[in-house]
Amino acid sequence: MEAINRIEQALLAAVSAGQEPGCPPKLAAAVRHAVFPGGARIRPQLCLAVARACGDGDPSMADAAAASIELLHCASLVHDDLPCFDDSPTRRGVPSVHAAFGERIAVLTGDALIVLAFQCLAQGAAHAPQRLPALLTMIARRVGMPTGIVAGQAWECEPFVALPSYHRAKTGSLFAACTEAGALAAGSDPSLWQSFGLCLGDAYQVADDIRDVAVTTELLGKPNGRDLALCRPSSATELGLAGAIAHFDHLLLRAVDSIPPCAGAPALRALVRAESERLVPQATVRDLALAA
Amino acid sequence: MEAINRIEQALLAAVSAGQEPGCPPKLAAAVRHAVFPGGARIRPQLCLAVARACGDGDPSMADAAAASIELLHCASLVHDDLPCFDDSPTRRGVPSVHAAFGERIAVLTGDALIVLAFQCLAQGAAHAPQRLPALLTMIARRVGMPTGIVAGQAWECEPFVALPSYHRAKTGSLFAACTEAGALAAGSDPSLWQSFGLCLGDAYQVADDIRDVAVTTELLGKPNGRDLALCRPSSATELGLAGAIAHFDHLLLRAVDSIPPCAGAPALRALVRAESERLVPQATVRDLALAA
Repeated sequence: MEAINRIEQALLAAVSAGQEPGCPPKLAAAVRHAVFPGGARIRPQLCLAVARACGDGDPSMADAAAASIELLHCASLVHDDLPCFDDSPTRRGVPSVHAAFGERIAVLTGDALIVLAFQCLAQGAAHAPQRLPALLTMIARRVGMPTGIVAGQAWECEPFVALPSYHRAKTGSLFAACTEAGALAAGSDPSLWQSFGLCLGDAYQVADDIRDVAVTTELLGKPNGRDLALCRPSSATELGLAGAIAHFDHLLLRAVDSIPPCAGAPALRALVRAESERLVPQATVRDLALAA
Repeated sequence: MEAINRIEQALLAAVSAGQEPGCPPKLAAAVRHAVFPGGARIRPQLCLAVARACGDGDPSMADAAAASIELLHCASLVHDDLPCFDDSPTRRGVPSVHAAFGERIAVLTGDALIVLAFQCLAQGAAHAPQRLPALLTMIARRVGMPTGIVAGQAWECEPFVALPSYHRAKTGSLFAACTEAGALAAGSDPSLWQSFGLCLGDAYQVADDIRDVAVTTELLGKPNGRDLALCRPSSATELGLAGAIAHFDHLLLRAVDSIPPCAGAPALRALVRAESERLVPQATVRDLALAA
């Protein structure tokens, strides 16, 4: 089955587990709204691509790990969009969860998604539980404290923050979770795959900064110019648009270089190239930077 | 070791796992503030008491389950206190997390605590992973969707709600998690312990309603009269104070009756009696109801 179909099926199964009779209707609807339709699903795609490169020895655990990470990503988007953070009225081109369902349901939707993510992981590991403690512990550390995405978001509440550690926590850590989880689910050594995930995550954060200044709100599906408006550290404001694009390209090269030798390496390189063009397209962003 | 010492040690170990260098200082402080000093720790006490009644065959898993449930309880308190919910300035007699650290850190503290809870569970199960999927799945369902405490809170956002299902989800479900987790951690059948937990949870919710109208803010450690002020369903407003106390006593009797035959039954009955007096004390609440 195509990776994207595996991912959507795993997400549907995970979300359906919480949608039984007895669930408050608004919460059930808000959780579906937060997960479907998705964005590019790049994190779970990365997780499955690494699992495949490692032999895909346990597809059901790889699917569960991929879905779990995507649910955690969706949870972080719902909470990031809250009035007290970005106060974003839209996400993926439709109203954000708090705009559609209210702030209280948005807080609870994020909470429910975090819980569902770990539940999904446990269910995917039911037949091979010996891999669950390491997989769960790794994902939890990449999401929570001290240096996961929750910690990354918390750096925005501190008076002083170093840009690399902020980006590493806010974005890089969940990409590292993807590559490490793909390896762990397939029974391989996750440490070989950490660097690939971290480099990709760094690149993705820089791409986010670039898109925030260079892409229209319509294309982005959420308001642009938010980093500047919210005085958030951004490599586009720090390095300039052309400098940020050069930095992005450098990080992607480092990511490709850190792929361990394996049969799946060409497919992973192709995935990185496709993401590069999707995130920072030649026709709009790069030409725009040259013209500036 | 005394149960309360086991609980505090397990909580300290779980929280410390997130407090390493690299953690944003405000988030680290807020997580400690949300967990220490605790309240009565009745949920983890209940979990350990059931584990002991079932032979306490795996103390480290029982400790992890107890701490995990308490961390999830603390997370729910932090989010319940947020301005968009109860807007409570105090909790356990000190400023609530959002009052002390701001709303953004409070949202992130709840998120971090949910993640830490599952991480703690995985670490306690490292040497006996075969029990982890069932234990984690049960706790996740009792916390999240469709009928866990997050769902219970979400019923407050619906136009119509039946009081028993609201209470069962908002409070009862986490008490059922305690008794079932204690049994599962000790390798016993959790289904025998579900009814005990649910009855206790129902009683505890009624006690909360009673205390909300009958106990002063100073004793409660948080503002009283909130159910009425927020138009929340409450058995004290529905049955009157004396009616609610009679209902509370009836629920505790049912709880005691549902303890499965075991060597630990007398200790569990003593725990229930002590909680009854702590929650609805003769000298203040019951005499007050008689005088009304």
